[in-house]
Amino acid sequence: MGTPRLISAAVRDVQCGEDVVVVQPCNLYECSLGSHCRVGPFVEIQKGVVIGERTKIQSHTFVCELVTIGSDCFIGHGVMFINDLFQAGGPARGDTTKWRSTRIGNGVSIGSNATILPVSIADGVVVGAGAVVTRDLTERGIYAGNPARLLRRL
Amino acid sequence: MGTPRLISAAVRDVQCGEDVVVVQPCNLYECSLGSHCRVGPFVEIQKGVVIGERTKIQSHTFVCELVTIGSDCFIGHGVMFINDLFQAGGPARGDTTKWRSTRIGNGVSIGSNATILPVSIADGVVVGAGAVVTRDLTERGIYAGNPARLLRRL
Amino acid sequence: MGTPRLISAAVRDVQCGEDVVVVQPCNLYECSLGSHCRVGPFVEIQKGVVIGERTKIQSHTFVCELVTIGSDCFIGHGVMFINDLFQAGGPARGDTTKWRSTRIGNGVSIGSNATILPVSIADGVVVGAGAVVTRDLTERGIYAGNPARLLRRL
Repeated sequence: MGTPRLISAAVRDVQCGEDVVVVQPCNLYECSLGSHCRVGPFVEIQKGVVIGERTKIQSHTFVCELVTIGSDCFIGHGVMFINDLFQAGGPARGDTTKWRSTRIGNGVSIGSNATILPVSIADGVVVGAGAVVTRDLTERGIYAGNPARLLRRL
Repeated sequence: MGTPRLISAAVRDVQCGEDVVVVQPCNLYECSLGSHCRVGPFVEIQKGVVIGERTKIQSHTFVCELVTIGSDCFIGHGVMFINDLFQAGGPARGDTTKWRSTRIGNGVSIGSNATILPVSIADGVVVGAGAVVTRDLTERGIYAGNPARLLRRL
Repeated sequence: MGTPRLISAAVRDVQCGEDVVVVQPCNLYECSLGSHCRVGPFVEIQKGVVIGERTKIQSHTFVCELVTIGSDCFIGHGVMFINDLFQAGGPARGDTTKWRSTRIGNGVSIGSNATILPVSIADGVVVGAGAVVTRDLTERGIYAGNPARLLRRL
């Protein structure tokens, strides 16, 4: 019988611009936040993530390695980003060459509880709440559903 | 290079009845909880929210401004409420006149990971786990899916 | 006017093997974690849950009573397990005889934001991100969607 080793979530080694506010508890490490970013409570942002200026990351959201988010984005509550597609029938288990990247443009809005697989999302796209984004969204518009489909152009 | 300003989630300025229990860490502020309410950990409830007696708010749930929840409701884990429909193609960015309200009746049960857009939900309605509710639910019944549809009447 | 009674999430009465790591804040109580398990931040695991060796439970996930998870599983971020189907038109409200159990086999991978109703999932199954699993998954394969359907065999 062992006892678990307890580590604490923390905000550490975060590169950031001016006027960045983070509501703890959060687990943010080795990532970069542009000036005037806001990060809500219960958020995890992993190493290597780069987030542009004035972008808001709302509560309960998870941003994994290999994600880049532009400026003036709004990432809702409970949004989960993904870098591992389980392509070999299971997780990469540390083989990061199997992970894929995500690139979110500028002025993108992502609704709460959305799930974002490794894709590219164009500037100004709106992703509806609860959507599961499985493909690149290259055209400016509003997308929703599981899997996410274009509802209308913007 | 700046350093982030760190704020801590807290339970502050909460009006509440008798026998209310909150599991921290939570971020609850300027809201009202009826007697005998229970709130799980990792929950955020924003200002102006009113919650009736004996209602349970489970872990990981986010209740935004302009939401009213009745008595004897069960709000599952990871439920996200929404007040901003991105109707101008993006978030209201502080213009709260663009937000819309949500009214949850009495005895409503909402399954875990459900997403609730600004709607009205009638007394006694059951929303299935993982549902995305995009329209008013005026008839007593069980609703599920994305978008949520009536499965059967109650 | 009352004041809420504040309880703190904690890691308490957890049976565990060797080399188990938990990132706090977490709410883990009266459960069992096999050797080499990893548990991310903002996780709740309720009493009676049994988790096998080398299984990873990622951030923001909720594992309710009556869930058993095998060895070498990967449970993504924001995954919600459910034991109450609201079968009487609402929650069991403490009548645990109405709850149903979930059994997850070995080597199962569950994508982020998935919702798992009380079901049995066979060894080696992959559940896609954002899926809502409403039925037993007895055949090894990849399942996705709301409700989850077989995408392809493995």
